[in-house]
Amino acid sequence: MSEVSRRNLLTGAAVAAAMGPAMLAQPTPVMAAAPLAGNQSAGWYRYKVGTTEITVATDGRSVFKLPDTFVTNVPKDKVNEGLVAAHMEKDMMVIPYSPIAVNTGSKLVVIDTGTGEKNFETTKGTAGQFHSNLKASGIDRNNVDIVIISHFHGDHINGLLDANNAPAFANAEIMVPAAEWKYFMDDGEMSKQTSDRMKGVFANARRVFDALKRKVTPYEDGKEIAPGITSVASYGHTPGHTSHIISSGSSKVFVQADVTNNPALFARNPGWHAFFDQDGAVAEATRRKVYDMLVAEKMMVQGFHYPFPANAYIEKTASGYREVPVPWNPSI
Amino acid sequence: MSEVSRRNLLTGAAVAAAMGPAMLAQPTPVMAAAPLAGNQSAGWYRYKVGTTEITVATDGRSVFKLPDTFVTNVPKDKVNEGLVAAHMEKDMMVIPYSPIAVNTGSKLVVIDTGTGEKNFETTKGTAGQFHSNLKASGIDRNNVDIVIISHFHGDHINGLLDANNAPAFANAEIMVPAAEWKYFMDDGEMSKQTSDRMKGVFANARRVFDALKRKVTPYEDGKEIAPGITSVASYGHTPGHTSHIISSGSSKVFVQADVTNNPALFARNPGWHAFFDQDGAVAEATRRKVYDMLVAEKMMVQGFHYPFPANAYIEKTASGYREVPVPWNPSI
Repeated sequence: MSEVSRRNLLTGAAVAAAMGPAMLAQPTPVMAAAPLAGNQSAGWYRYKVGTTEITVATDGRSVFKLPDTFVTNVPKDKVNEGLVAAHMEKDMMVIPYSPIAVNTGSKLVVIDTGTGEKNFETTKGTAGQFHSNLKASGIDRNNVDIVIISHFHGDHINGLLDANNAPAFANAEIMVPAAEWKYFMDDGEMSKQTSDRMKGVFANARRVFDALKRKVTPYEDGKEIAPGITSVASYGHTPGHTSHIISSGSSKVFVQADVTNNPALFARNPGWHAFFDQDGAVAEATRRKVYDMLVAEKMMVQGFHYPFPANAYIEKTASGYREVPVPWNPSI
Repeated sequence: MSEVSRRNLLTGAAVAAAMGPAMLAQPTPVMAAAPLAGNQSAGWYRYKVGTTEITVATDGRSVFKLPDTFVTNVPKDKVNEGLVAAHMEKDMMVIPYSPIAVNTGSKLVVIDTGTGEKNFETTKGTAGQFHSNLKASGIDRNNVDIVIISHFHGDHINGLLDANNAPAFANAEIMVPAAEWKYFMDDGEMSKQTSDRMKGVFANARRVFDALKRKVTPYEDGKEIAPGITSVASYGHTPGHTSHIISSGSSKVFVQADVTNNPALFARNPGWHAFFDQDGAVAEATRRKVYDMLVAEKMMVQGFHYPFPANAYIEKTASGYREVPVPWNPSI
């Protein structure tokens, strides 16, 4: 009984009280002066690109049993080898979510919105954190001028709504890739879907955008869609999937969205097709093109599914690419 | 004038006011609904090793011009190549500081203490953050039961004192490596020193420990010095430099202290001798032995001079080792 947890101690005390004074003569158990804390810090981090301020606010992450066909063109054993090589747990998959806010000095912009406040309850706080972490960082979502969406998967658009299904960014213009809007809001395309998953993606896009009265601004690729923020088509993951380059002065960061999922698997093995890449071959070609560019230009990447704070450089390896996290700066 | 920074706007308004009412009819400049934030999150992060809770609370970092002889056995050009290879700035060195608190359930332990509260003012907040970040994490330093010191360099011991040079951990037992105490508190050893830097290390150790009335508990290596915390001699950086293994259940982490400095240079190039390695050859032998063990046992390392949160796995490379940060867990 020399080391007991606080909980054990309390139980012990309750038992002792019930059994009468004689039991209280036991030696005092050793315990830490402070109980275990059990909480995590608010997951936000700020860095500058030129004079532009980028705030990464994690939405949390999902941890789930590795599906047999998680990578469509590689056997599960090989995926497990990749997990172990990356110091991850076998047969389990981890997918972090890292939306960002961008203050250019003239506009406060959010890029992608996480899995939504409702998901915070559903997941007991392991995901759906974006809105609370954004608030913890000092950013009032009512001050957001523009929300830019990269593509229409739920982990990117569900946070457009609050827990009551009302617009979460009440005063913001919502900008969506024109190609994504055209494809997913087309009832003809929806009627062609055969898989439950794809039917769900179409239905969820309608749920979210209908709640916004479909009041969005479609944007083309290759345009400066907000001050210093340029859209870059990176199709494959979805038909209109779009990345963004944020630039200020001579500095740049490539906000990739889902060019790769978790880089520990999909940057290191760029030929692997995750089952949620709608067109695996096109997604792979995009991935290789983008990552070759990041290596050649030594450009930082901000990756939606990278571990928080999701900011890295990319190196070429014998078999693919490797993410090298940008060191945390303890004072901006 | 469609996009101006807030500063420009204020200047413009001042100019307009000076020039009279006619100028005020200018169109309203566009600006972000929210000003730039300019602050960083409190740098703390929590993870578990078995049932033990580890809280990393960054002390900040130092950024300085690369000294010509920063690495004593490698020319500066080669060090610069190493910096560039690690995506760091040429001719500049960055040294982060990451002390930790460990709650074993029966004891609340701090391992190393950072550059001290006084350094917060000296560095305008870029270092000396440990005490404020520990507090932000919910840990009251008055509840700390034990402070374990790895070695007697200022960035590890100065935080034993508060801003008024009083004991910062008022209720804690202060444990120091017996070999380090014997060496640095020996006036004969002090009298042999010829360099200003080494004279300074001896004098600073006296300053700090005299303020504590030299009330410390020397500990030997290879012992369980607190519940689940074992001392491991890792001499070379200093004559009594000691690392620690924290274990709980089947989980372990190797708290290395200064077996390497910033791993981007000194894990990747284990043969490089940083000028503050008191015995470069012994420090290198220790480094290789420890890192080979970390690779073989796939053991996590917690590195005092690693970028926050300073928790990584180690891989062997053709020329040395490589740190692979453990992904951030957004909910403990």
